[in-house]
Amino acid sequence: MFYHVKELQYNAKPERPDPVYAKKLQEILGGQYGEMTVMMQYLFQGFNCRAEQKYRDMILDIGTEEIAHVEMIATMIAQLLDGAPAKEQEEAAKDPAVEAVLGGMNPQHMIVSGLGATPTDSVGYPWNSRYTIASGNLLADFRANLNAESQGRLQVVRLYEQTNDPGVRDMLSFLIARDKMHQNQWMAAIEELEQQQGEVVPSTFPKNLEKQEVAYSFMNFSEGKESAKGRWASGMSMDGQAEFEFDESPKPMGQIPILNPSPNYVHGTPI
Amino acid sequence: MFYHVKELQYNAKPERPDPVYAKKLQEILGGQYGEMTVMMQYLFQGFNCRAEQKYRDMILDIGTEEIAHVEMIATMIAQLLDGAPAKEQEEAAKDPAVEAVLGGMNPQHMIVSGLGATPTDSVGYPWNSRYTIASGNLLADFRANLNAESQGRLQVVRLYEQTNDPGVRDMLSFLIARDKMHQNQWMAAIEELEQQQGEVVPSTFPKNLEKQEVAYSFMNFSEGKESAKGRWASGMSMDGQAEFEFDESPKPMGQIPILNPSPNYVHGTPI
Amino acid sequence: MFYHVKELQYNAKPERPDPVYAKKLQEILGGQYGEMTVMMQYLFQGFNCRAEQKYRDMILDIGTEEIAHVEMIATMIAQLLDGAPAKEQEEAAKDPAVEAVLGGMNPQHMIVSGLGATPTDSVGYPWNSRYTIASGNLLADFRANLNAESQGRLQVVRLYEQTNDPGVRDMLSFLIARDKMHQNQWMAAIEELEQQQGEVVPSTFPKNLEKQEVAYSFMNFSEGKESAKGRWASGMSMDGQAEFEFDESPKPMGQIPILNPSPNYVHGTPI
Amino acid sequence: MFYHVKELQYNAKPERPDPVYAKKLQEILGGQYGEMTVMMQYLFQGFNCRAEQKYRDMILDIGTEEIAHVEMIATMIAQLLDGAPAKEQEEAAKDPAVEAVLGGMNPQHMIVSGLGATPTDSVGYPWNSRYTIASGNLLADFRANLNAESQGRLQVVRLYEQTNDPGVRDMLSFLIARDKMHQNQWMAAIEELEQQQGEVVPSTFPKNLEKQEVAYSFMNFSEGKESAKGRWASGMSMDGQAEFEFDESPKPMGQIPILNPSPNYVHGTPI
Amino acid sequence: MFYHVKELQYNAKPERPDPVYAKKLQEILGGQYGEMTVMMQYLFQGFNCRAEQKYRDMILDIGTEEIAHVEMIATMIAQLLDGAPAKEQEEAAKDPAVEAVLGGMNPQHMIVSGLGATPTDSVGYPWNSRYTIASGNLLADFRANLNAESQGRLQVVRLYEQTNDPGVRDMLSFLIARDKMHQNQWMAAIEELEQQQGEVVPSTFPKNLEKQEVAYSFMNFSEGKESAKGRWASGMSMDGQAEFEFDESPKPMGQIPILNPSPNYVHGTPI
Amino acid sequence: MFYHVKELQYNAKPERPDPVYAKKLQEILGGQYGEMTVMMQYLFQGFNCRAEQKYRDMILDIGTEEIAHVEMIATMIAQLLDGAPAKEQEEAAKDPAVEAVLGGMNPQHMIVSGLGATPTDSVGYPWNSRYTIASGNLLADFRANLNAESQGRLQVVRLYEQTNDPGVRDMLSFLIARDKMHQNQWMAAIEELEQQQGEVVPSTFPKNLEKQEVAYSFMNFSEGKESAKGRWASGMSMDGQAEFEFDESPKPMGQIPILNPSPNYVHGTPI
Ligand SMILES: [Ca+2]
Ligand SMILES: [Ca+2]
Ligand SMILES: [Ca+2]
Ligand SMILES: [Ca+2]
Ligand SMILES: [Ca+2]
Ligand SMILES: [Ca+2]
Repeated sequence: MFYHVKELQYNAKPERPDPVYAKKLQEILGGQYGEMTVMMQYLFQGFNCRAEQKYRDMILDIGTEEIAHVEMIATMIAQLLDGAPAKEQEEAAKDPAVEAVLGGMNPQHMIVSGLGATPTDSVGYPWNSRYTIASGNLLADFRANLNAESQGRLQVVRLYEQTNDPGVRDMLSFLIARDKMHQNQWMAAIEELEQQQGEVVPSTFPKNLEKQEVAYSFMNFSEGKESAKGRWASGMSMDGQAEFEFDESPKPMGQIPILNPSPNYVHGTPI
Repeated sequence: MFYHVKELQYNAKPERPDPVYAKKLQEILGGQYGEMTVMMQYLFQGFNCRAEQKYRDMILDIGTEEIAHVEMIATMIAQLLDGAPAKEQEEAAKDPAVEAVLGGMNPQHMIVSGLGATPTDSVGYPWNSRYTIASGNLLADFRANLNAESQGRLQVVRLYEQTNDPGVRDMLSFLIARDKMHQNQWMAAIEELEQQQGEVVPSTFPKNLEKQEVAYSFMNFSEGKESAKGRWASGMSMDGQAEFEFDESPKPMGQIPILNPSPNYVHGTPI
Repeated sequence: MFYHVKELQYNAKPERPDPVYAKKLQEILGGQYGEMTVMMQYLFQGFNCRAEQKYRDMILDIGTEEIAHVEMIATMIAQLLDGAPAKEQEEAAKDPAVEAVLGGMNPQHMIVSGLGATPTDSVGYPWNSRYTIASGNLLADFRANLNAESQGRLQVVRLYEQTNDPGVRDMLSFLIARDKMHQNQWMAAIEELEQQQGEVVPSTFPKNLEKQEVAYSFMNFSEGKESAKGRWASGMSMDGQAEFEFDESPKPMGQIPILNPSPNYVHGTPI
Repeated sequence: MFYHVKELQYNAKPERPDPVYAKKLQEILGGQYGEMTVMMQYLFQGFNCRAEQKYRDMILDIGTEEIAHVEMIATMIAQLLDGAPAKEQEEAAKDPAVEAVLGGMNPQHMIVSGLGATPTDSVGYPWNSRYTIASGNLLADFRANLNAESQGRLQVVRLYEQTNDPGVRDMLSFLIARDKMHQNQWMAAIEELEQQQGEVVPSTFPKNLEKQEVAYSFMNFSEGKESAKGRWASGMSMDGQAEFEFDESPKPMGQIPILNPSPNYVHGTPI
Repeated sequence: MFYHVKELQYNAKPERPDPVYAKKLQEILGGQYGEMTVMMQYLFQGFNCRAEQKYRDMILDIGTEEIAHVEMIATMIAQLLDGAPAKEQEEAAKDPAVEAVLGGMNPQHMIVSGLGATPTDSVGYPWNSRYTIASGNLLADFRANLNAESQGRLQVVRLYEQTNDPGVRDMLSFLIARDKMHQNQWMAAIEELEQQQGEVVPSTFPKNLEKQEVAYSFMNFSEGKESAKGRWASGMSMDGQAEFEFDESPKPMGQIPILNPSPNYVHGTPI
Repeated sequence: MFYHVKELQYNAKPERPDPVYAKKLQEILGGQYGEMTVMMQYLFQGFNCRAEQKYRDMILDIGTEEIAHVEMIATMIAQLLDGAPAKEQEEAAKDPAVEAVLGGMNPQHMIVSGLGATPTDSVGYPWNSRYTIASGNLLADFRANLNAESQGRLQVVRLYEQTNDPGVRDMLSFLIARDKMHQNQWMAAIEELEQQQGEVVPSTFPKNLEKQEVAYSFMNFSEGKESAKGRWASGMSMDGQAEFEFDESPKPMGQIPILNPSPNYVHGTPI
């Protein structure tokens, strides 16, 4: 169960309205790697957790924090939308600056939400839950989480570069720090799990049932060999079980597929 | 540019039709972490690559392989659909076994694709490109790739458990091995990049601009302290820059938000 | 900002697993009118609220409760999935009861979430934020909320009828009661707002700017006059401003549209 | 069955082209609460209607009117797109006014529809049928309809404010009036049904099966008591069955959830 | 503007309920090529039509007919859902036949629509408007229409095979006949337009601006020459402007792409 | 299985960056009729092909070519995004030209992809697989393909008109030529199939089972008879089996639908 306190986790006080920037900021609220994504991803991972209680507790702690991040960014966007000009009210309609603002805004910020944040990304695409994963295998999921915090911090940093409002930057500097912690956190949890079960997900599938011949070879499906120069093409594999191989010109190992004609009741192409 | 050869990368020969299993197998073809996802994700990462050529080449090699994985699974599904009973043709309509098959099938395998694979997942939801990411930052993207191969291999293993058709299992044992290699490959590439630039994405944002006070503390947003027991709550941080802290009862640091009343032309709640 | 406590708002303890029912129960978790919808709808209405503080507080209180409803139903679904049979493990594969379970399950509950709840509806369609509205006009939004709680309670009641597990029914009886309260709550808030501003949304648009001739007439776009028999076709209008009229055979009042030919650079149909 | 007449229900004659406004106007054509939504929602409610014939007839009458609203707005948009500048044709490419138009347009109005309306909203997101509901319970559905007409009229009014084209405003003044009538109409139908069956949907669920203890209490999930000040927190409930209560600090009533470890064949986190 | 008459265009009277078949029948109501698609596609093509009035009139006539097809199929589905068993009401819950019905039904037909048709396809995926096109070029669009009627009739025929209910088959035999007419109709309109403007869409782009060298050659991007055996690889081209060529081993004509490093403010991969 | 070569199929070298045009060009990459659509549509048609091998080979040849088209356009977009201004870096932030670029760009090109192409259309909507069809009936599918190449070429031509960059136009002139060939190719394949099996899809449904009375009549669902003037309303039908008829005022042939009241357990409208 959850409780709310009225204060934000950190300040969300822009120095001045900026409806065009409000549109961009939506990306880290309702985008593929926005706060709604990590919030729902962590909550579902926690609710579904069948592992040790310390994991469930940790995941739900961070999930609960993310709800507060959604709250902060939504609050910021609402304030950035203050003073968005409506064409008619303003004599200034022919003023190019006003026009630029109107053109650069998300029209739904005016028409649909009436100057409020929307649960969408920077092009207005609605958030959907296929952005999230809770697989029941924590090593797999913590990799998803590390990725989400990496993509997310990258996007926040890019948004930081696109404004010079000190209030906005202050809030973003908080989020950038938390995303650094969250990357560290998932790396720590991943290290813990990898030490227990090994690096490959899932660790419980019997090795003898997998096609060993192709389990450690890099296949070069192009002309030229630049791809041989990386760590992935030679040396000990990361799971410490074999040497990487470089297969310079991989050959097909399968059949030429010939499908049966379709039965009459399918009304496929007559033969 | 691309060329096709008619042979499959590996055999896709089921021993017998199984239309119900065909529905399930769609998950690793057109699902969130299916082969279409890694195929499109790697191709776009490669096409957009602004880093060293060895990365572009490596990414496109694996992206090209994934097109062949799409081909193999689609071929397998088409064969599993052979012999799917149509209600009318069969006198056996009242046969419970036939009924079970009809009930467990994806109806679109009969009505829409006429016994062919569809670019959808195991509940018939269409593949969409928001499953993929190509961010322009390879460390971020390789973490996305490692996650995709981890979730993907987990799903293939679960599907392996749900059939006893030797032909299907043979193909899956190949994919399971390739997914192991691909996990190893992305781990290797990640290690290489982390050694050059550090563990936190992006590595190029100035530390002094981020809110240092909260950059290494785990915040315990619940009663109880199980979450203190993990690697993430104490000891050196994973980026080696600080000690993890455990903030037992985190307090809000921000304002109570009070938004301005909306202007008249928005026709919000009258006050 | 938010805090979590480990106990559920109410018990979620099924008497026995039932993977087929788990699939159905997803509707009120991640469906169009499931708990995720009201949770996100109320949180965004609260975060964006520009009206009196009592409204913001009330909306966020109920929004916070809804997160706990998501938690309860997710927990219930995970437990209903316990013991879901995997085909191979079970000798019983040819047992029709097992087959029925396997056929009636959501395959993603096995393949994707590993026996956990998913943020999707009963056909596996992912939740998306276009299910929600926060318009900045509270009377409009409270009508959305009243509708959501009406549709939601109707669905919970229908699900109650489809199980006889006492534990499931116990949890549903709690949700049914809360949905009754929530319907009452939104009706109360609506009455309060309607008494202040009138019944029509928005109340602030000048009456003289709207086409009065058609503002109170019911138009009968069909043969027969059954539709004249209702309260909407005669008597005082609900906003008390006029009498309802019944327009027995409404006539077009507009032009026959003739569009200009398209310019050359559009390459439309040549004329 | 349906018939078409060539005249529009009301005039749709803009005074001058305005491709930027055309983009915005899409919201009330193909948006969440646009005319396509009410059209499809009412048609399906009518087709599925199992209640008295006067309801079916009434619902289909208004559904049929809404098709004409789609027609009017589509016609308006096509005319607003007349004269949209193509970059090359115009020497004026460096003219900032032209640039502003080009930047503010929906690019698909040029590339995809060739200066025609599209079945999408103001950010180009396609209309989808999850915007609609036909539940088989008319009181629930009429609340959905009242909400749709409230949100819809709010959006039309906001769009009215954003143009000063007399022809566009004339058409909008017609739609604003019809939306007023439609709000009145659904309020009338709701009153009729509530008088017969009571206020809570569905009215047919036995009271003794619902958890009475929590059926009338407002739960205050936050610090502070502003939320106690409203009509919803004290006094007679709206269904007249009980007194509202204010639960100042609601406590969890459920278990701490502990899920079983997952079975081996799921390959969850090893324990 | 539109009018409704209460009779259906053709009878929709199933002999007996069949909730499992109701699920399948949804495909031709709300699927990619269902009646909602052709209805909305034709209406928008008509509303946007900038060509001769006979085309607009013809397109809207058929668009109006398609609304009646939606009505017929929705009515049929509602009747097929009559008598769908609810688990609890029926003692027969352990009856395998009842179980089969429950398992094969779309759960939303019970929970969401209360035994009514839904605007979705046979896997429950909602209809969306990206299924439709109205491009402003009638030759292009009539090809879209011919395709839609071809895919649509194919699906109806497949559904005909899956039932033996005489009432359902009677309705389908009507739709199959209309789809034949509609294929004929679009072929006729295409022939008319091709005779005026030629076969290639759009016909108005100057030939000298297109890369003539590759305008008539089939490129064989695989080993083996089976693809040379078709009409497309030799002989006069269909537009009568050149001979088809067979390019046995096509070579790349473009550069090896080398992208610039990304600027600092993008925080891409450091180099 | 597939191989990659590093050269592009044709040059993709813009003369100068143009981030606003990059946004538009996305339409033919990830839009409804973009290269991703034809690529996936042809690959799945090929993988699923149950007809003569020459068809499978031909379809996969063109499918393989389309992957190269995706590659070319993605490469072009990445280069058009070079030099996209970031607000902060540039003193020029108040420069209207810079502002126009920033306003006209897709914000995700900066925030999400870091100056790379995205698998989306010109409004940022993600590509999804419901844009494609592989029905198992080649005549139906080749009509889909002809339509896709017609819509696609129309869009490329419209984009050609909107730039004067010689490098972009050079690449588009290649695509315009290939789309001409592909239209010719599908017309040729269609002719071949129609000569074998007739014009109506599917050709295998027995004529006596379809409602002959309505199989060749055009129904005039409106006032006025403009629609009688076309080829579709008189003369020999296109399949040569009958004469077209013009039904001036079509009458309903079906029942007035009366649905049964819903059973109690559905909790529909009480009666
Ligand atoms: Ca966060
Ligand atoms: Ca793979
Ligand atoms: Ca609730
Ligand atoms: Ca309307
Ligand atoms: Ca039809
Ligand atoms: Ca192409």
